This record gives sequence, C-alpha cells and structure tokens, in this order.
Amino acid sequence: MSNKHFVNDPVHLLNLALRSAPLTNPSLALDEENKIVYCKSSPESHASRVAIISGGGAGHEPSFVSFVGDGVLRAAVSGSIFASPSVKQIYSCITRRVNPNSGVLLIIMNYTGDVLHFGLASEKAKAAGVDVDMVVVADDVGVGREKNGKVGRRGIAGTVLVHKIVGALAATTAGASLKEASALGRLVAANLVSVGSSLTHVHVPGRAMTSDDDEGALKPDEIEIGMGIHNEQGYKRIKIPELPELVKILLGQLLSKEDKDRNYLEDVENIEGWVLMLNNLGGVSPLEMGAITAEVAKQLDSTYSIKPKRIFSGAFMTSLNGNGFSISLLRLVDTGLGKAKSMLDLLDAPHESLGWSAPIKQETWANAGGQNQASESDAKEESVPPSGLKLNVNQFCHALSNALKALIKAEPEISRYDELVGDGDCGSALKKGAEAILQLISANKISPDAVITISTLAEAVEANMDGTSGALYSIFLNSLAKALREAGEGEVTLGVWAKAAMAALVSLRKYTPAQPGDRTLVDALQPCLISLAEDGNVGKAAKAAREGAESTRRMKASLGRSVYVGDVGDIPDPGAVGIAVLMEGLAEVV
Amino acid sequence: MSNKHFVNDPVHLLNLALRSAPLTNPSLALDEENKIVYCKSSPESHASRVAIISGGGAGHEPSFVSFVGDGVLRAAVSGSIFASPSVKQIYSCITRRVNPNSGVLLIIMNYTGDVLHFGLASEKAKAAGVDVDMVVVADDVGVGREKNGKVGRRGIAGTVLVHKIVGALAATTAGASLKEASALGRLVAANLVSVGSSLTHVHVPGRAMTSDDDEGALKPDEIEIGMGIHNEQGYKRIKIPELPELVKILLGQLLSKEDKDRNYLEDVENIEGWVLMLNNLGGVSPLEMGAITAEVAKQLDSTYSIKPKRIFSGAFMTSLNGNGFSISLLRLVDTGLGKAKSMLDLLDAPHESLGWSAPIKQETWANAGGQNQASESDAKEESVPPSGLKLNVNQFCHALSNALKALIKAEPEISRYDELVGDGDCGSALKKGAEAILQLISANKISPDAVITISTLAEAVEANMDGTSGALYSIFLNSLAKALREAGEGEVTLGVWAKAAMAALVSLRKYTPAQPGDRTLVDALQPCLISLAEDGNVGKAAKAAREGAESTRRMKASLGRSVYVGDVGDIPDPGAVGIAVLMEGLAEVV
Repeated sequence: MSNKHFVNDPVHLLNLALRSAPLTNPSLALDEENKIVYCKSSPESHASRVAIISGGGAGHEPSFVSFVGDGVLRAAVSGSIFASPSVKQIYSCITRRVNPNSGVLLIIMNYTGDVLHFGLASEKAKAAGVDVDMVVVADDVGVGREKNGKVGRRGIAGTVLVHKIVGALAATTAGASLKEASALGRLVAANLVSVGSSLTHVHVPGRAMTSDDDEGALKPDEIEIGMGIHNEQGYKRIKIPELPELVKILLGQLLSKEDKDRNYLEDVENIEGWVLMLNNLGGVSPLEMGAITAEVAKQLDSTYSIKPKRIFSGAFMTSLNGNGFSISLLRLVDTGLGKAKSMLDLLDAPHESLGWSAPIKQETWANAGGQNQASESDAKEESVPPSGLKLNVNQFCHALSNALKALIKAEPEISRYDELVGDGDCGSALKKGAEAILQLISANKISPDAVITISTLAEAVEANMDGTSGALYSIFLNSLAKALREAGEGEVTLGVWAKAAMAALVSLRKYTPAQPGDRTLVDALQPCLISLAEDGNVGKAAKAAREGAESTRRMKASLGRSVYVGDVGDIPDPGAVGIAVLMEGLAEVV
Repeated sequence: MSNKHFVNDPVHLLNLALRSAPLTNPSLALDEENKIVYCKSSPESHASRVAIISGGGAGHEPSFVSFVGDGVLRAAVSGSIFASPSVKQIYSCITRRVNPNSGVLLIIMNYTGDVLHFGLASEKAKAAGVDVDMVVVADDVGVGREKNGKVGRRGIAGTVLVHKIVGALAATTAGASLKEASALGRLVAANLVSVGSSLTHVHVPGRAMTSDDDEGALKPDEIEIGMGIHNEQGYKRIKIPELPELVKILLGQLLSKEDKDRNYLEDVENIEGWVLMLNNLGGVSPLEMGAITAEVAKQLDSTYSIKPKRIFSGAFMTSLNGNGFSISLLRLVDTGLGKAKSMLDLLDAPHESLGWSAPIKQETWANAGGQNQASESDAKEESVPPSGLKLNVNQFCHALSNALKALIKAEPEISRYDELVGDGDCGSALKKGAEAILQLISANKISPDAVITISTLAEAVEANMDGTSGALYSIFLNSLAKALREAGEGEVTLGVWAKAAMAALVSLRKYTPAQPGDRTLVDALQPCLISLAEDGNVGKAAKAAREGAESTRRMKASLGRSVYVGDVGDIPDPGAVGIAVLMEGLAEVV
C-alpha cells in the first residue's frame, strides 16, 4: 500500500477533516475542541426524541461523524486515529451537544477503550440525572469464540446498519422511548454478522513508513481473512484465492451452521428476509467493489438461497484507505414496533446523512421483482428505411469500383508515407475498407436507393477499417446518408451528391479538430468538396484534392496527439493522398 | 500503490462489476453483451423526455453506469478499462435501450476514442432518423492551451455535474426539448473547470506489475500536478508540498486570471455563485478527503472570496483506486429556463442515482447561513446538583485518608506484581489517583453532600489515573454517585453505602467482561461488596477483599486481550491487591 499522503501530520489531518462535516452538510456544527459533530437545529425540536450518539476512533470515515444528520445520528464524537475519544469529549457531547430530555442512546462498537470511555461518560451523565443507555455492537465473526474469550467480538461495518435503523426510529415524529430505541438496537445487533478481508495493512499517517518487508506485513501473495479495521489480526492468512473461493470462505464464516466457533446467529423463527452490505475499507476501486458485490450476491443465492431485500455497496466504515472489504448480513426479524417500523421501513426512511447515502426509494425496491421490462432478446436487426432517392446502380458501381481499385493500387505508396510520418497503418486500413466495398458490389448488395446504399457502405467501412481513419470515414458516410435523406425523393444528381457531401463535411468537422493546414485528410477533402459544390465537375474536384494532398508536403502536423510532430522533409500526408487517389479514380469514369 | 487486487482478469472484473448495477439499484437493467446499464421502466413513461446517455472507458466508477437512474442518466455504455466503448455498443444503446422519441443527448468527455465512437454512433442514429445531439465536456485545466493544441482539454470529474444538471432538466415532468437540454449542457460545461493531482500512478488489473522503479513512475517524494484519470501526464511533477501549498497551486490553475495558458473561464456578468466538488480518484482515505475539502474551502474564501453554495466531496469519477483527487468548480449562471430550473435547483432535484449520492435537501442548504445555533462559547461549567444526602465530612476524610495512605505505601509491592504479570503501571496509576484525592481532602474540597463528594472524587480519578484501571474506578464512583442520589435525602449510613456500592458493581460489570475467577480486581471487589451488603461490617468486607486477592494467586488470566495469559507462579493480581489494601485501610478507622 502507498505510504504517500496529502497530509502527514495526524493531528492536523483530523482537525482539518472534521471541519469538512459542516461544509458538506450545512445542518451540522462542529465542536472543534471536543471533536464533536452534531445537529445544530434548535434543541427544542429534538426535545421529544431520543438522541442517538455514536463515536470511536478516527480513520473510519464516514463513520462516525458523517452519519450525523437528520434521520440517523444526532451527534458523533471522534477520537484520534484508531484511538477512542476521551471521557471528557463524550460527556460533553451527551450533556451539551444534544437535547437529552427524552434520553440519550450511545451506540458504539466493542473495543475496550470505547466501552470504558463511553461507559464512564454515560455513568457520569446518569449520576448528573440524564437518562442514558448504551448499545455495544459486536458484529465481526472474523475471530471465533475460542480466541475472543470473554472480550467478545469486535464491532465493524455492520454497526452503521444499527445506526440507520435506530436513528430512523428515533427520528419518527411519533417519538420512541429510550427503552424502545435501545431494545431495537440490541435486536438489530443480535441479528447482524460481518466479516472482513484485506490484501494489505494500511499505513497510518505520521507513523513509521511501512514496507512489504516489515515484520507482520502481508506478503505479496497473501491475504488476511477476518482482518479488523485497525490492521488487527483475523482468522488466518492464506495465499490470495480467486474471488469465488474467497467469498465462499467468508460467507461460510458468516452463515455456516457447522462452524461451531462462529455460528453467531441464534436460531429464530419468522425470518423476514436479509439485508446485504458490502463495505469498502477505503482503498478498493469502486470497479472491484462492484465485482465483489455481484459475486457475493450470486453465492448467497446459489449456496444459501438468500436473495437480499436490500443490497448496499460502498465505503461505510473505512480503515483509512485499506485495500480490503467486509461483508455484513442483517437478518430481518419483527421489531414488534408495528406498522411502518419494520427494519426495512427504517432502513428506507428518508435521512440527511452523508455517510449513509442510499438514494433508492422504498417503492423502487418494492417494484424490483420480476424480469427486466426491456427484454434482452429484443435484438431485432436494424434496417434502414427506404428514402425514395434513386441512383443508377450500374453507373454507381462502375465509378466506385474504379476509384476503389485505384486506392488498392496506391496502397504501397500510402503505406510508405505513413511509415515515415505516422504509425504505418493508414494504407492497409484504406485497402481493407476498399476491399470490403468491392465485395459488396460483386455480391450485388448495392441498392437503387441512394440512402440505403450509402448506409450499407458506412456499415462495411465501420466493420472493416480500424482506427481513427475508419471512424472518420464512417462518420462521413453516415452524415452523407442523413443529408441525402433530407434531399427528398427523386433522382440523385451530381448536385445532390455535392450538397450532401458538403453537409457531411460540416458534420465530420464536429468530431475532429483538424483544419486545413493541419496535415490531415481534411487538407484534400475540403478543397475537393468545395470545388465540387461550386463547379459540379468531378475532374476539377479531383484536381483540387490532389493539390490539397500535395500542399501537405510543406506542413507540420499540429494536432496535439499526432504521432508525428515535426518536419521529415518532402512527404505528403497519407490520408490526404488517399482522398486524392479516390477522387481521381472517380473522375476517370464519371 | 498496491498491485494487489481481488480480481486480476480485467475482462471478468468488468463483466462481474456491471452486474452489481441492477443489484444495488433495482430500477436498472443490464445489457451484458453491449455493456449498457439502462433504466428499465417502461419506455412509454419516457416518451416525452429527452434521453440522456453517457459512457466511456471503465475504471472510473461510479462514472458512468452508477449515474444511471431516475433524475440523472437514462443509460450509460461502458468500454473496457480505460478504453472507449465501440460504435456498435453505443448505437445499440441509442436505438434499443432508451426511448428516443423526444430526442437523445449524449454527454461525453473529450477523448479521441470517445468523441469518434459516440460521434459515429450518433451520425448513424441520425441517418436512421433519430434526433441526437452530443455535448463534449472538457473541464480539465491541467494541461494548458499551448500543450493541448487543437485537441482541447480533457474531460474529468466535473462532467458529472453536467450529467446531474441536464439529467434533472430532462426528468422534469414539464419536459425539456433536446435543444434546451444540449444548450444547458454546453452552458454548464463552459462554466466548469477542474484540475487533478496524484501521488502515484494507478495499477490496472491484468497489466504488468508496477513498482516505484518503473520508468515513468512517480518517485516516493513526487506528486504530479494535473494528472489525468488514466495516469496521463499533467502540468508537471514536483516534490510533494504541504497541503496548503498544493491547494494554492491547483486553485491558481483553476481561477487565476494571470495564467494566460489556462484561464478557461470567460468573463461573464451576473455570476450567481459557485459550486465546489472534490473528487476522490479512488484510493484516498475519506479522512484525507475531508482535510482536502476543508483546505480548499478555506483558500477559496480567503484568496478568491468564493463561498460555494454547494460543496460535494466523494468519489464521483475514479481512476480505479488512484491515490489522488481533483477539484471542480462550477460557476453558476442564469440558465434562462425560468423558475425552479436554475443550476442549483437542478443540482438539488431528487434522483435515484447511486453515483450522485447527495442526500442534503434544498431547504437544508438554504438554511445553512448564519452562525451555529448552538454557540461554541456556551461551555458552562457543569455542576452536580445537591442531593440532600449528608455525610460527616471529618469522619469521611479521616477514613478515606487512612485508606489512601495505605495504598500509597503498598505501591512498590503492587508495582512489582504488575511488572511480573502485567504492563507494570497498575501501582503508579493507583498512587496517582490516591494522591489526587488526598490533595482534595487537604484543600477542603470535600462537600457534606455525599453525591457531590463522590462525583468530585470521580472527577479526580478520571483526571489523574491513566489506563483501564482509571476508567473502571471512575465508572464505579460515578455509578456510586448515581445510586446514592437514588437513595434519597437524609444521613448516609453504612447500609446506604453498601447498597449503593452493590448497584455500582452491577453497573461496572456492564463495561468489563471480567467475572470472579478471571484474575482481575473483580476477584477482590465482588466478595468484598457482597460481604458488606450482607453483614454491614467493614472489617469483614476487608477480609473478604484480601481473601479474594489471595485467591488470584492460583488463577490464570483468561481475558482475551490481557497482557499476561499463562501461569507465572505465586503472584496475586495487582488490581485485586489494591482493593484489599484500600478496604483494610478503611477498616482500621471505621
């Protein structure tokens, strides 16, 4: 993992980062001294609601400060990186940053420091007359019962599901009691299991630089199954397996009834479904998170017959920019709270918390069932509708064949030019396109409808000519077809061709920055088409194309991304030469 | 940057990742063959709305497929990693995956492949009779005019602001014309500037492994200013500066009127404000992103007098898990579209796109002005309300002093035990706590109100005793204070003390998993308090404490995180000995 950071001083880093909370969510305020982020709305409006508070070490953002906001947490207290906040900070939060009149619920994770400090603060607050309760979440199954001892499991990312569900309950206008809120918190926690896995240990800013050679570092081919969110040891290290095998191991730890050391979900009746949450520890690309999400969903279905009612995937509780992820599964059970207060209802409830960020509405999830309405099998063959613009097929094929044969004959010369000034493939691309069209001609695929014919040529060019020149020729031909269609019905005259070709040139120019003078095919094409439009004479137009191509001998390539940028002497642009050759071929027989 | 990935085959990675789109947003469907993610709602409901399509190379997730959803994009086409999708894919999207009846707007970024492929597909669709327009976003100022040449600027993360704003316009029930939508897209793009910066090149799965020694790799002390989203070269490489200096350079590139090579924002009148977007290239910790966000906002204000009306910070357009970020600034100007269709209105409009994820409501932003309602200066000194439960100050001080002096005298013995079986600080922590309380006594800080006194002792212990034992003593004392308050008014008798102490023990047990037999202070405290409650005799209670402490000689520590786990012979638990010493000191004089 990279040891490079934008801010290396951990104290400054955290102080600065906390200031972003009210900047990105204007309903929040920051108590800088105590590292508390809290809802700043007038305490009166909160008087009838249980205040939900969380907190813990920093380095897990968006947990916990970005879960503060209407509908989730009322406040969160941040320790320094990977360290619990102090009792003073927490006590200050309980007594001064929330309205404690309807009770305060602390929802924290099972780490010794957090349990003691939040516990002590809550006892102090109780001694001062505040009604406080505390729910400790321990969802991590990574370390089994035997190794955990009496300390129990750690808390990891599944905790944010407790925050969201209990936060939504507390936010309902009806108002829930502290007793109801803490009972719900414990119910969610009891039905929650998580497990993580990481490819590397994360580097903490300000600490000694790490390298692969450090004692304790994971080897380049190793992965840690069950790693915690502070680089803690997990279940074991293994050679990095393929993703399906890794997911199989992790889901087994979460769900297998055979794993007596884990099997933390006690049997219950009336399971209402499951929620799946994939958590990015911070340094996995969103692309990879997508792949992991799909693989987990697939195996949940195929191995455990679980089709989650909600799937959330994102960075909910990071380990700085850890290159790992965790899977959390919440088993949905009856909350006993009645209508519109199921776990799903509370998960779906509106909120203003940047950490949660789940914009999908309940009705959208409800409508999720069934097949895609736009069926995958509707791949009907596209056909170009007839235009009524007629061409003489024999004449057209004769002229076009002559031009294409001339182009094929000129291929060695064009290739030689391109080898000197470009990437050498211009000649062969033109030849391939020409051959494809000649095949269409010999197979009698040329329609008397001019628009259909030009569309057919465009298809052939697109399918057979590689690279930029292929795309540019295809754009030109498609634009030509469109302009011909707009010309209306009747015979296609040279005047119609010329006008449509000018329109196609204008269209082409939208997709390439090339101007005359830039040493591209535009140097031949533009004067050629202008001449054709002005004089209606193919011979003159061919001459203009040749002159344009010759003029490129004295030009430097000026497009930023051209292979050749400089002066190689007396070589014309190969693309421009191709245009000239084609036009001369046409002129011979038109 | 780490070369380790959970999926190494880039083809499988992308195919799998695309499947997560409909899993996490059930309103979407996936055309796997063409790598198109699209809204599956019945095309009829879209007939009166312009269909907004985007796309480009993969590896930039959530761009573009996760921006598909009600209110933003109607569909997105994904190429392979860092490569444009093919014309066939794009054409299929335009003609088969959206309802093109009210026109189709392609919003893409300025890369040669994308411009040509989307351009060709749009010309083909036009030739087939579909009304298509294309907006090409080029917001990256990283490479200046001179180096850009005629190819122009690249498009980077600011593009998603165009998606959101134009997507919201297209989604309004009133319906906007294709002409209005594309004009708005161009207006937003013209008022948009972005610049990036990266600490490392990102590793693409499936490509050769990279190391710091590779040609082109950034050195350990280097940063690239203006790096693109495909590891492209930017403005230049410099030694990593402190964050304020880095932000100064980047904001200068975005906003300085003196930088003639960049200064891309043409002068306009009637600026309505600014929007700031901070984009994580994928591998920066959310903690660091917070710090960067705050620093950028600070300098925008102090140097440019810009207070953005909206600040968005997150991963909107990644470069896999790139260790870098970009800053985008959108200048708000009149859209000319009338009421509720300002750029801000459209940014705030509701949506169901996982990529955008901005849950803050318009009214919340509108109420953002002014000071925090909970003022920072309201730090009133907490005072414990009187309880009416009286103690004899002289007697209390005499007994307590005796116990504390005994504890100080026993410190060397306790320390020796702890050096053998723990981390050696138990004795000194107890001594520091005892000395602090003795100071309170000699300073006449002991109140005749029992609850106030115990709260005062708890404060002193919290402030002076470090570590776990300090927290546990503080919890016990706070719980004791609370229980005493509940005892009601009157004289505090030994019975009241005993009953309150039992309640405090119950409370303490919530915060430590220690049971009798686990070799902790609980082994002395619990039998001592039970004895006190049963017999009301301090001498007997002290004897029970000593027996409990002695019994720990034969115990192994069993808590998972204990320093000592094993048998060191005939040593008692130092914490338990501390309890015994204290109780014996009390018993001598009570």
